[in-house]
Amino acid sequence: MKKFLNDPANFVDEMLEGIYLAHLAVTYVGDDKRCLVTAKVKPGKVGIATGGGSGHLPLFLGYVGDGMLDGAAVGGVFQSPSAEQIYQVTKHIDQGAGVLYIYGNYSGDIINFEMAGELAAFDDIAVKHVVGNDDVASSIVGEEHKRRGVAGIFFIYKSAGAAAAEGLSLDEVTRIADKARSRTRTMGVALSSCVVPEIGHATFSIGEDEMEIGMGIHGEPGISRKKLAPADAVIDELMERIFAEQDYKKYDEVAVLVNGLGGTPMEELYILFRRVSQVLQQRNVTVKYVWIGEFATSMEMAGASISILHLDNELDRLVAAPARTPFFQHVAG
Amino acid sequence: MKKFLNDPANFVDEMLEGIYLAHLAVTYVGDDKRCLVTAKVKPGKVGIATGGGSGHLPLFLGYVGDGMLDGAAVGGVFQSPSAEQIYQVTKHIDQGAGVLYIYGNYSGDIINFEMAGELAAFDDIAVKHVVGNDDVASSIVGEEHKRRGVAGIFFIYKSAGAAAAEGLSLDEVTRIADKARSRTRTMGVALSSCVVPEIGHATFSIGEDEMEIGMGIHGEPGISRKKLAPADAVIDELMERIFAEQDYKKYDEVAVLVNGLGGTPMEELYILFRRVSQVLQQRNVTVKYVWIGEFATSMEMAGASISILHLDNELDRLVAAPARTPFFQHVAG
Repeated sequence: MKKFLNDPANFVDEMLEGIYLAHLAVTYVGDDKRCLVTAKVKPGKVGIATGGGSGHLPLFLGYVGDGMLDGAAVGGVFQSPSAEQIYQVTKHIDQGAGVLYIYGNYSGDIINFEMAGELAAFDDIAVKHVVGNDDVASSIVGEEHKRRGVAGIFFIYKSAGAAAAEGLSLDEVTRIADKARSRTRTMGVALSSCVVPEIGHATFSIGEDEMEIGMGIHGEPGISRKKLAPADAVIDELMERIFAEQDYKKYDEVAVLVNGLGGTPMEELYILFRRVSQVLQQRNVTVKYVWIGEFATSMEMAGASISILHLDNELDRLVAAPARTPFFQHVAG
Repeated sequence: MKKFLNDPANFVDEMLEGIYLAHLAVTYVGDDKRCLVTAKVKPGKVGIATGGGSGHLPLFLGYVGDGMLDGAAVGGVFQSPSAEQIYQVTKHIDQGAGVLYIYGNYSGDIINFEMAGELAAFDDIAVKHVVGNDDVASSIVGEEHKRRGVAGIFFIYKSAGAAAAEGLSLDEVTRIADKARSRTRTMGVALSSCVVPEIGHATFSIGEDEMEIGMGIHGEPGISRKKLAPADAVIDELMERIFAEQDYKKYDEVAVLVNGLGGTPMEELYILFRRVSQVLQQRNVTVKYVWIGEFATSMEMAGASISILHLDNELDRLVAAPARTPFFQHVAG
């Protein structure tokens, strides 16, 4: 196993120690480093909490900061955080305006966020849930509730975070998060496995000349495994599946996220974006915002995903708003 | 070869097409996409140009933008750009205040930047050179002129870029760049090779349980190859070599760059920084600025480097200044 590690059992906690040493804008609740919160809770603002397994940096905790989220409960590698940890984050960030939970569609996360919401209800904290399910590959149209949440959750964070920063109510922030969710689609492709530190070997095997279309960020099976195709052909297939999902009209605007899964160089992500841009142009869809880099990874997995947010005027305003977290900065204008 | 590619011969040009489609803040001179320049040249400001081989994103071109650089000549993968390309960038960015070249200590780059400076002299453009040589591993003390330039060039860009943005003269910007150069040291460690697209196989081989201390970002041999040690022990060795170079006094301040070489997950970089922070604390050296992520890569190479800039009051002010490029944002304060 080629990792910079001490005891694999301490992977998550040592990573968190590094994060707290590097970034004074975040801190933790009580003595549990896995309850990460912003160091400056904003009075009166709707709180936004997320959470999920480790191994996906900058997801999930990397988006806690101005204009994005207020807290993140941090699980073990690919494991849900506990309901108690989510509850502690919730209590800390609630400022009387309620808390929105935004998390991915995984059974462990759903159970624990629901339980945390029930605990918060005893404290009279209003809690709402929006569950990211952007991964087109994980079920057919009509069964979107079965789909996994992947990199597209970034757009939900960005939209809801900006709405909360504007001072909107919990109902409004929830409505906006849900709209961003319903208008975001992601398709991914994996070229290699990742290695969970405490396991020490590849999660799955894949041939030297193979790719898997639609693989999940924990190595969940995708739609098809086949011979690695040229970059443009890979993007054409991913974009075809994304376009089949939403009704795009001429001159509609989108935000694009080209996300590296961890092991894929930035150079290749730009080669992929080149084709994404060409495909959108062919369809007369305008790229208004682009982010290219690592936003939701699977440690050292080679691969990439394309997320498209279909903008409307409201989402346009919110995506454009400034944001500043330890892992993500967006300067407006 | 597991890469998102079309024809490997088009790797650099398609990457550049993706960059120009994504980032309107940069453009190119004439019809040569490899002559990348800022889209908004600042009247009267000293220009700063860099350049070097491709395959190191965000290095080199990623730092062209506000508060950093004005242009970058882009070579093939691990190849120097031509003197003509550097000269074209120089002519475009010169605003009558002269141009500083900042590049790494590689023979091809040196030859071509020197030739470009001579071409510029015919146009009465004043040109100065600062050659990054931060890589401690590549020669002994006393022969620093033989050392390679690696990730520490980031600190030269940051300091000189802020000085130029303040309106300082070419002599002053050069003095500052040279000071940042002389106070920056880097030590790296590689865990795996990269693959040059047009070659299609690993540049070198390294055992499943081995690391190479001091390896260069093109796979140049390092100081020693040995069994992969625990993360803390790796950092202790790197930091020992960095500290042997500079006279640190109690309460001196530093800027730290923990740089991933491409294939190493962010989680591991934070585990490394945790130990860097501990080592500095033990020596009563204060970490004033920290950047952790990918700043100078070798495509999919797994590994990391630690760069330390020994601050003084002037460098402190310049490192703190705001910067905004397609690949790097720093908000002051």
